[in-house]
Amino acid sequence: MTTTRAACERLDHDDPVASLRELFLLPAGVIYLDGNSLGALPRDLAARVQRVVADEWGRGLIRSWNTAGWIDLPQRVGDKIARLVGAGAGELVVADATSVNLFKVLSVAVDLARLAWPQRNVILTERKNFPTDLYIAESIARARGVELRRVDADAIFAQLDERVAVLVLTHVNYRDGRRHEMAAVNRAAHAAGVLVVWDLSHSAGAVPVDLSGNGNVDEAADFAVGCGYKYLNGGPGAPAFVWAHPRHTATMDALHLGQPLSGWLGHAAPFDFAADYRPANGIARFLCGTPPILSLAGLECGVDTLLAAEALGGTAALHAKSLALTELFIALVDARCAGRGLVLQTPREQLFRGSQISYAHADGAYAIMQALIERGVIGDFRAPDILRFGIAPLYTRFTDIWDAVENLFQVLDNGEWRDARFARRTTVT
Amino acid sequence: MTTTRAACERLDHDDPVASLRELFLLPAGVIYLDGNSLGALPRDLAARVQRVVADEWGRGLIRSWNTAGWIDLPQRVGDKIARLVGAGAGELVVADATSVNLFKVLSVAVDLARLAWPQRNVILTERKNFPTDLYIAESIARARGVELRRVDADAIFAQLDERVAVLVLTHVNYRDGRRHEMAAVNRAAHAAGVLVVWDLSHSAGAVPVDLSGNGNVDEAADFAVGCGYKYLNGGPGAPAFVWAHPRHTATMDALHLGQPLSGWLGHAAPFDFAADYRPANGIARFLCGTPPILSLAGLECGVDTLLAAEALGGTAALHAKSLALTELFIALVDARCAGRGLVLQTPREQLFRGSQISYAHADGAYAIMQALIERGVIGDFRAPDILRFGIAPLYTRFTDIWDAVENLFQVLDNGEWRDARFARRTTVT
Repeated sequence: MTTTRAACERLDHDDPVASLRELFLLPAGVIYLDGNSLGALPRDLAARVQRVVADEWGRGLIRSWNTAGWIDLPQRVGDKIARLVGAGAGELVVADATSVNLFKVLSVAVDLARLAWPQRNVILTERKNFPTDLYIAESIARARGVELRRVDADAIFAQLDERVAVLVLTHVNYRDGRRHEMAAVNRAAHAAGVLVVWDLSHSAGAVPVDLSGNGNVDEAADFAVGCGYKYLNGGPGAPAFVWAHPRHTATMDALHLGQPLSGWLGHAAPFDFAADYRPANGIARFLCGTPPILSLAGLECGVDTLLAAEALGGTAALHAKSLALTELFIALVDARCAGRGLVLQTPREQLFRGSQISYAHADGAYAIMQALIERGVIGDFRAPDILRFGIAPLYTRFTDIWDAVENLFQVLDNGEWRDARFARRTTVT
Repeated sequence: MTTTRAACERLDHDDPVASLRELFLLPAGVIYLDGNSLGALPRDLAARVQRVVADEWGRGLIRSWNTAGWIDLPQRVGDKIARLVGAGAGELVVADATSVNLFKVLSVAVDLARLAWPQRNVILTERKNFPTDLYIAESIARARGVELRRVDADAIFAQLDERVAVLVLTHVNYRDGRRHEMAAVNRAAHAAGVLVVWDLSHSAGAVPVDLSGNGNVDEAADFAVGCGYKYLNGGPGAPAFVWAHPRHTATMDALHLGQPLSGWLGHAAPFDFAADYRPANGIARFLCGTPPILSLAGLECGVDTLLAAEALGGTAALHAKSLALTELFIALVDARCAGRGLVLQTPREQLFRGSQISYAHADGAYAIMQALIERGVIGDFRAPDILRFGIAPLYTRFTDIWDAVENLFQVLDNGEWRDARFARRTTVT
């Protein structure tokens, strides 16, 4: 490893998307490697939210549902997110939390699959899927009397048998940063007659996603959900999004099918206040209650910040930088921290890597991360033994990676992580 | 009717809670009678949300889940709302949208009722219940193979038979402002072996609610949900709340029962990221995904504004003012607008009245409301023929009522509502 900090400075100088960092407000003295959990604050967001509060709400009051376009926000922001995940306009809406949206689409996917193939009675998933996704799948499996089959990531292809109705996966694993090859999974699943539901929470905005399969229905996803507050920078707990392939919403239109959370905003005519539920056509049927406008306005600003990258090469340019940054991180840790107990969890193959790097450390993962945070290098810890470093290409510099690994080296080298003040407490996703 | 505007000025002068209006920012030239749809902007809210954005998120980043107490917000704000609805600390949490919460508690209520009495296979509700509540009840009835029986409000007591598992009602009707006598309904339902689920969206913060039945389990409610953006002044789409009687959460604890939307935040140990769902004890099991913090912080500020009334007599004082205001509204319309086609929908009996006044007008409800809005008197229209005037006692003055009715009189008297520019367009809840 011959890279130097000066070489990293040159990489930053030559970075074609370096200017995007200026669109964020990051505190001095902090290297923020937790954008996979909570994205950083876009520079324009405070003013945007303030406008919503003071002008739209304070002065416009109830009228702003129409005059300020609040009522269209779920679709308007949805159309913007669609551009980041290979979906078409009108195919994606913002609504509720990711878990709630997963409940909607997984319920529908199981019902649609079993309508076509009643003998299919298995929901297949990855044993190490994001826990909340497993919990929701458990709930749906129990309610419908089908089996939730959990298998290792490597066994998924082999398990796509004639009993499986739906495969539900997270595109990039939250712990180890492993990325599924979406098109290949979709192709194999569809060949086996299985529908695929994707959770894009740890990938949208950081790695390429093509829900449409480039127009090839075999390689397209069937349903997807994702999170607004990670790489989309929507702010803490920003609402989530939900997408369905147009062929499925067309089927649902033809059969007049809704989804279980049949709230008023997903009604065909919400302002008629009709006594009976009649689902809206298309993706709008996946709306439920009234959306939290302050948080939704924040999300729009976060997504706008990502879309500013389009002029500089868009997701492809961001992903190229992500790969260069994660590659650098791995190489520097290989070179500087060898023999210190860190075990790389994230695949070295770029094709299978998300925009984060994870290491296991048997004794000290929590304490090492606490020591790093005290030094201003903010990643996070996942039980029982994982150090996570999220690498958001929008605002992370090559020198940040250098400095982070330098700090990691020092924390390991001088043993400061063994100090009692770094003993384990609670942390948050 | 001998009341004059000068008399209304005296009522404002003598109003013991008049000072609470100063806690809001209301635009000049507007009489806002739509706080039953979207509450007004609390004076402190913009600064509170700004602090969350700039300081807690911008500077604290992910650390603010702990250091700024974001993770405790659903419980902290829940405890504050509990004080407004006769619930105990630790019994109520803020989460998701009202429709989503209704899905959770109605699912659980049906399951608990049928566990005890398997032969009960009916969900009973009011024909004119809030539509989204009907839609959610429809969805649950279909999924569980039980009947959704819709009856007139007057027929509810007679319909509490041995086939009914759960009664689901909205405390104050969104259209006509009719209020159910909660304790009497609970007593009758419990005597018939029926659980009661209440939607408090149009009552919490404006009329007295005692979920606990003053400690008498026969008169206590079983489950409740409610809205954060109406009389709680949380801002557009602010998150909703959910409550369960402690006897039911105790049963659920003993039986290890969750609810269908088994997201990570309702897990017994969310930060263990365990593979299997294990519901939290108590009300926390009704949490699901990560809450929208910007909107939730707004809600806390809105609720704090309501709690400021506690020093001035609290809900009882607000309700006394609400009754005086609504009484005045009815009397003034009786006196000034007789023979103009307005038909009062709201009960004249105070015991059955919420904090709103509704009139039907066969030909012109929409246009009359548009003409009023143009004059700065903001109520709303509900299809097909209802004019709604929400009377939020926190910030509505007696002179506002006088001026509103004066404008209503003029709009009817001079026929300006017949102008083409007031022809029907879409409006919003």
